[in-house]
Amino acid sequence: MQRKRKLGRGVAVVGAGMSQFGMFKDKNSKDLFAEAFNEMLSSVDKGVDPEDIEALYLGNFTNDFFIHQAHWGPIISDLIGHTPKPATRTEGACASSALALREGVFAIASGFYDMVLVGGVEEMSKLPVEKVTEGLALATVPYEMEAGFTFPGVFGAIATAYFERYGATREHLMNVTIKSHNNAPLNPKAQFKVSIRDIMNSRIKRAKDKGEAVPAWRDEKEFLRDPVVNPVVAWPMHLYDCCPISDGASCMLLVAEEIAENFTDDPLHVIGIGQGSGRGLHAADDITYFEATRYAAKEAYELSGLKPEDIQIAEVHDCFSMAEIIHPEDLGFFKPGEGYKAVEEGLTALDGSKPINTSGGLKCKGHPVGATGIAQLYEIWRQLRGEAGERQVPIKDLRVGAAHNLGGTGGTCTFTILERR
Amino acid sequence: MQRKRKLGRGVAVVGAGMSQFGMFKDKNSKDLFAEAFNEMLSSVDKGVDPEDIEALYLGNFTNDFFIHQAHWGPIISDLIGHTPKPATRTEGACASSALALREGVFAIASGFYDMVLVGGVEEMSKLPVEKVTEGLALATVPYEMEAGFTFPGVFGAIATAYFERYGATREHLMNVTIKSHNNAPLNPKAQFKVSIRDIMNSRIKRAKDKGEAVPAWRDEKEFLRDPVVNPVVAWPMHLYDCCPISDGASCMLLVAEEIAENFTDDPLHVIGIGQGSGRGLHAADDITYFEATRYAAKEAYELSGLKPEDIQIAEVHDCFSMAEIIHPEDLGFFKPGEGYKAVEEGLTALDGSKPINTSGGLKCKGHPVGATGIAQLYEIWRQLRGEAGERQVPIKDLRVGAAHNLGGTGGTCTFTILERR
Repeated sequence: MQRKRKLGRGVAVVGAGMSQFGMFKDKNSKDLFAEAFNEMLSSVDKGVDPEDIEALYLGNFTNDFFIHQAHWGPIISDLIGHTPKPATRTEGACASSALALREGVFAIASGFYDMVLVGGVEEMSKLPVEKVTEGLALATVPYEMEAGFTFPGVFGAIATAYFERYGATREHLMNVTIKSHNNAPLNPKAQFKVSIRDIMNSRIKRAKDKGEAVPAWRDEKEFLRDPVVNPVVAWPMHLYDCCPISDGASCMLLVAEEIAENFTDDPLHVIGIGQGSGRGLHAADDITYFEATRYAAKEAYELSGLKPEDIQIAEVHDCFSMAEIIHPEDLGFFKPGEGYKAVEEGLTALDGSKPINTSGGLKCKGHPVGATGIAQLYEIWRQLRGEAGERQVPIKDLRVGAAHNLGGTGGTCTFTILERR
Repeated sequence: MQRKRKLGRGVAVVGAGMSQFGMFKDKNSKDLFAEAFNEMLSSVDKGVDPEDIEALYLGNFTNDFFIHQAHWGPIISDLIGHTPKPATRTEGACASSALALREGVFAIASGFYDMVLVGGVEEMSKLPVEKVTEGLALATVPYEMEAGFTFPGVFGAIATAYFERYGATREHLMNVTIKSHNNAPLNPKAQFKVSIRDIMNSRIKRAKDKGEAVPAWRDEKEFLRDPVVNPVVAWPMHLYDCCPISDGASCMLLVAEEIAENFTDDPLHVIGIGQGSGRGLHAADDITYFEATRYAAKEAYELSGLKPEDIQIAEVHDCFSMAEIIHPEDLGFFKPGEGYKAVEEGLTALDGSKPINTSGGLKCKGHPVGATGIAQLYEIWRQLRGEAGERQVPIKDLRVGAAHNLGGTGGTCTFTILERR
């Protein structure tokens, strides 16, 4: 039954929006989705009548746990005036909205709908941090949770194995953090819009101003090595290796390719969609890669006919610094064990040959888990259309970008490729 | 942009399975899904290699809340040996697995996959009953939950409005309960396999045996009117108007129509899929119908080209007796305000002209919420193929059956039509 993947008809992105990401006392899930939705509407070059949206797919991990409310499909449907048309929630932990996008693509490619809104939302900051950690751990497989694993521990274990196998060290993780923090100040929607150097300098200045002992940090790595400012969470994951707790929302408007020109002369085409599932760390013979990511990449490459070297920019799921080293290897951008060298050599920087997480990544942009998958694709939308402002990558003839989204301990992974023609 | 619905290619059902439904101390979600999956495998007439399943869609409402575990796609994927292939959870409250089926249909109709497993699971009985009620209330819209509405109250309010509008009474609700309990003993997988008459007679016998005062009930309605055996929950919903708390799982195997003959000479064809979303009771100008159901029915009739009178048997979402009166009206089987008369006249009985809930319905078969949508279609599979045993309806040339699934206070409604050719 094996065959090359295909879709009955093409699907294009004609609009995209994203709320501010952060921890908001005064904004709830509906406020945040409204922010993303309104930006999406204004992003459609020739305009769109929201009445023409035929179906909604919404990614949400567990507002059930975070704010004691499930069944977000109809709530968001009501918010945007979409009822009685269908609204479906998808859940794949931190990959929930990438699944929404995929179902939107299938719904259009099947011929049933011509225009579908896909999005994601999560509201995490209303609970105390230890409860948020407990909520996130609902995404691990049962054996892991029972053994006491939460996510910093998971990626700490992965990093330890990777270090042992390939000779990387904690210093290499710092390169990822420094790069993410260099990109984030260029992204007005990011949760942390500050570089490590600026954090360091402001702390030095504050000490001087107060007449306190001035820290002896000479560069970002000395700052990150200081256990007072960057304490260990689960070795070798330190505070600055971990993404924050966030609230936020994102959405994209998908249409059948044949009608895209009604909405813009510059659509993006969904040329690759891939998804895989994983058994979790307890069942892996090797925890230095994610089989589900490799499967997702295979599906997406098969549909698009592209190879890893054809992907010009990418957002990958850097819930922890270690993750940003592993995923590009699994996606075929770099060989196994070479990912950390690529970061060190600057290949993944904004002006590198393969820019990764130009948005600042989950680490700095923020990670409202259900919104993340489509927020990653929002960054690709911005970059491919040349609308990324100060963080626009300097690649000539930029045409192809992709996003990799991971849920749980690799339980759900997706890879989505967009093309500008 | 309005157009008649169509699908790029047809989708067929070639296998179906369902676990026993009930409250199980010694079975968890994985045990129950395995039961359904194994029956599905053995139901495929010419056999199937589970390795050929390309994707999984799984409906689950909130095992997040019920058993403190989310992200069920990959857990079930692992259980059935499906990793690293994709697994997606859908959630639409009590309609979660009908959404899974719909996404499976789109995934195949899109041309991307040829064989997809769709299913549902829920494990509700491990918590105390008041916590289960709280968990279910996560599916109401926020205004309703804050106002103190749980589901018996919701359907109590609906019944009160319906009685006022159409002149129905509590006696008419009893007709639904009595019918459901008449069908259930014929369904070996049902949670309550006993008629109201048998419950009544066994209580009379017990009183006699113990030398206690013998109750004076002369028929089922006298039994149901007795507030000792059938106390009020939220007027006019009494104990026997409400479905139970259940654990269970269900699944179906979908394939592209063009390859169905490899698996069976007697497939069912998915000829109608419809879905709608609703704003909730607080926003309805009339609570005696569900707009989302009407929209779902419209979509499904448009795709199938059928009319309500073409549906020969149906399972509808009778979470409460009142619901079984309203849904057939919304689906066009009976006019608004006529549904209760149809039950009274026996039209919806097993040997009636439009048999409804031959399985015993949610009321007696049980309602493990995430499993229900596909469990309803399992009953249609059994009936259309003439494999429903003692509860087989006596309709000649039975070809078309349908299932209606409802989530929340009408937040998510679906209608799915299957045909045997």
